[in-house]
Amino acid sequence: MLFLDIRDNDFTAKFGTILARGEETGREVEQTVLGIIADVRKRGDAAVLELTRRFDRLEAASVAELEVTPAEIEAAFAQVAEADAAALKLAVERVARFHEKQKQQTWISTEEPDIMLGQKVTPLARVGIYVPGGKASYPSSVIMNAVPARVAGVGEIIMVAPTPGGQINPHVLVAAKLAGVDRIFRMGGAQAVAALAYGTETIPKVDKVTGPGNIYVATAKKLVFGQVGIDMIAGPSEILVINDGSGNPVHIAADLLSQAEHDELASSILITTDRAFGERVAAEVERQLAQLSREAIARASWDKYGAVIVAADLDEVIAFSNRIAPEHLELAVADPFAILSRITNAGAIFMGHWTPEAAGDYLAGPNHTLPTGGTARFFSPLSVDDFVKKSSIVYFSEGGLKRLGSDIMRIAGLEGLEAHAKSVGKRLE
Amino acid sequence: MLFLDIRDNDFTAKFGTILARGEETGREVEQTVLGIIADVRKRGDAAVLELTRRFDRLEAASVAELEVTPAEIEAAFAQVAEADAAALKLAVERVARFHEKQKQQTWISTEEPDIMLGQKVTPLARVGIYVPGGKASYPSSVIMNAVPARVAGVGEIIMVAPTPGGQINPHVLVAAKLAGVDRIFRMGGAQAVAALAYGTETIPKVDKVTGPGNIYVATAKKLVFGQVGIDMIAGPSEILVINDGSGNPVHIAADLLSQAEHDELASSILITTDRAFGERVAAEVERQLAQLSREAIARASWDKYGAVIVAADLDEVIAFSNRIAPEHLELAVADPFAILSRITNAGAIFMGHWTPEAAGDYLAGPNHTLPTGGTARFFSPLSVDDFVKKSSIVYFSEGGLKRLGSDIMRIAGLEGLEAHAKSVGKRLE
Repeated sequence: MLFLDIRDNDFTAKFGTILARGEETGREVEQTVLGIIADVRKRGDAAVLELTRRFDRLEAASVAELEVTPAEIEAAFAQVAEADAAALKLAVERVARFHEKQKQQTWISTEEPDIMLGQKVTPLARVGIYVPGGKASYPSSVIMNAVPARVAGVGEIIMVAPTPGGQINPHVLVAAKLAGVDRIFRMGGAQAVAALAYGTETIPKVDKVTGPGNIYVATAKKLVFGQVGIDMIAGPSEILVINDGSGNPVHIAADLLSQAEHDELASSILITTDRAFGERVAAEVERQLAQLSREAIARASWDKYGAVIVAADLDEVIAFSNRIAPEHLELAVADPFAILSRITNAGAIFMGHWTPEAAGDYLAGPNHTLPTGGTARFFSPLSVDDFVKKSSIVYFSEGGLKRLGSDIMRIAGLEGLEAHAKSVGKRLE
Repeated sequence: MLFLDIRDNDFTAKFGTILARGEETGREVEQTVLGIIADVRKRGDAAVLELTRRFDRLEAASVAELEVTPAEIEAAFAQVAEADAAALKLAVERVARFHEKQKQQTWISTEEPDIMLGQKVTPLARVGIYVPGGKASYPSSVIMNAVPARVAGVGEIIMVAPTPGGQINPHVLVAAKLAGVDRIFRMGGAQAVAALAYGTETIPKVDKVTGPGNIYVATAKKLVFGQVGIDMIAGPSEILVINDGSGNPVHIAADLLSQAEHDELASSILITTDRAFGERVAAEVERQLAQLSREAIARASWDKYGAVIVAADLDEVIAFSNRIAPEHLELAVADPFAILSRITNAGAIFMGHWTPEAAGDYLAGPNHTLPTGGTARFFSPLSVDDFVKKSSIVYFSEGGLKRLGSDIMRIAGLEGLEAHAKSVGKRLE
């Protein structure tokens, strides 16, 4: 862990190692993934079956066999404790309620004589949701991807999840059912992304692929971008906690560790105007680390990518935060609403001392799929917007074209596009 | 030109050649562009200068010299006819008025006790706009990229344009000034995209790069995606005209040619329920082609990628249109509003017989940067949305965390993320 003062001369150099942790995919990964995509495009189901056998050790006679059956979903409900299913249901309901507020309407303006302009909002017809397998197979990921799609009105939601050895987490199946997923296939990796993007004999081609995954999945998503839509390029996760000396170091240490336990590349950073408070948090992190079941992961993350930074005042703190554009930002200050308007770059903002990041991870309502690694400068949280597209609407009556025709023809003329001008001119002749 | 009946057995095979025209970047282009990006990242200004010298035959002692000065912009205004400047100003105003309607507000919900949730909308701090050089250097492109950025509230808009031999189109400069561009650099190609994405000593790093370009520019945008945002992956342009036998074949032929004159890869397609009408349009296209200044380009496009398709009824027509998801879609039918709700995939929809595509290209108001090649299935027109990003807002009071805490901890438990649960538990102890 780095304990730094932002005013130190070597601050930027030292802190740079944390910022650089998620850099760039190796070219070998890209070559491998390009090969897999080409194979799935060429051989379809046969390629998917072979790659699933190789990477997931799962034998199947056909891709149809990889689909999860209604009976399997029923069995999952029977396996899951009632209180657990109820908590997942609460999460689905709360996430749906939040995302309903993101829905945009088709509109058309009628304020101008002879001309109407508008924007039609249409849900995507079919989307694919990638859910990681194994230890990172989280029901909350299913909910956070499927619910916005369902709220948007997507026609069909297809989920894919690698199932090493065929095992699939029953909580994931329950979450998928509650969240409105239509079909589930046991397949993962770059081959699953390729199958969704291009379609195979059995897997229908989708319009967009969303969801987290390992480096092969992320690379595959990047490479199929343009063939289908994708949500965002996600890197390792991070939290920044902003503090003014108020609040409880025990709570803030716990929040830093909730991020650190995700994986060894996660980064947890506190920036405070109060050095003594920062020291108490650092000590408390050490104390709590020893009590964690995922101590090894959390410790590796904290040792390598954790930091406590001391700054002179909140101005300096806010400038730093906006510069690194954190995925998760806790405003652990006495009056978080007083500084909200000054936060320009952040995936999600957790306000005050009673809003741990974990609240937002599961069921507050907002999406937990957030831009990482500084991309909150330009990416937004996953939302209903990701599952619709827009079409412009332009209507001119004869009167409208008469009114604007000469200006249209003039600009077409400037650009040397005579046929553009003629398409107007011939109507006005 | 293909004259097809949609009910023919070989329709799909024959039409497939048109759909496949924009396929895939060669790997050599990608290797070249990767090299350019690496060079710009490593050597900054020096690389930009050298590449600009090589590709644009433009000598400069420094990148600062590549910046267009206020005096040059003044000179451009002096060169441009008053009526032309007025038409560009009208376009800027109309495009701004339309895009104002796309602005979304920051909101926060207060309907629930103890918990407030919301979404903050923040303009991007700085964006780069790519404007092609030479024959495709269009003032309308500048307007369509810069105005949405300005309406969104972007802090700084930086335009780049290659200027072979140093020449820059005065209409482009006038449009840039009217549209609110802040700085303009004479540079283009993959090197300009790389400079914007990573920054150099002189070129400030931006948050997003938008705008059309050749295959090197498009590939560079795709490769820097994730480092910065990009607008969309644009391919060759297309128009689909839907017709029910109503209207004037002369007008529709002119519209088809307005697309064909763009470039040889453009595709213009008419689908009509009236074979005789289709035949008249085909004959009229031939007649008008002979009168075009850009005949060679338009003829190459029409011969290779033009089509007139006959279908049984409007149902078949609409299903076809939704399947190919055209960039530009003209509803050249008697009652376009009767079918608008059934159009699910299109970049822009031009309603009725008095709305040629050219109206939307310049100054109706909606953006002319539209998804091509079937990507209207999932991409939207360039809009104010492209120049803002969102942050989720989550606020829990102590009461809120008490109410939902046990469910949060339960889901954290299901996922085996103990530190997540503890960040709640320690607050509720």
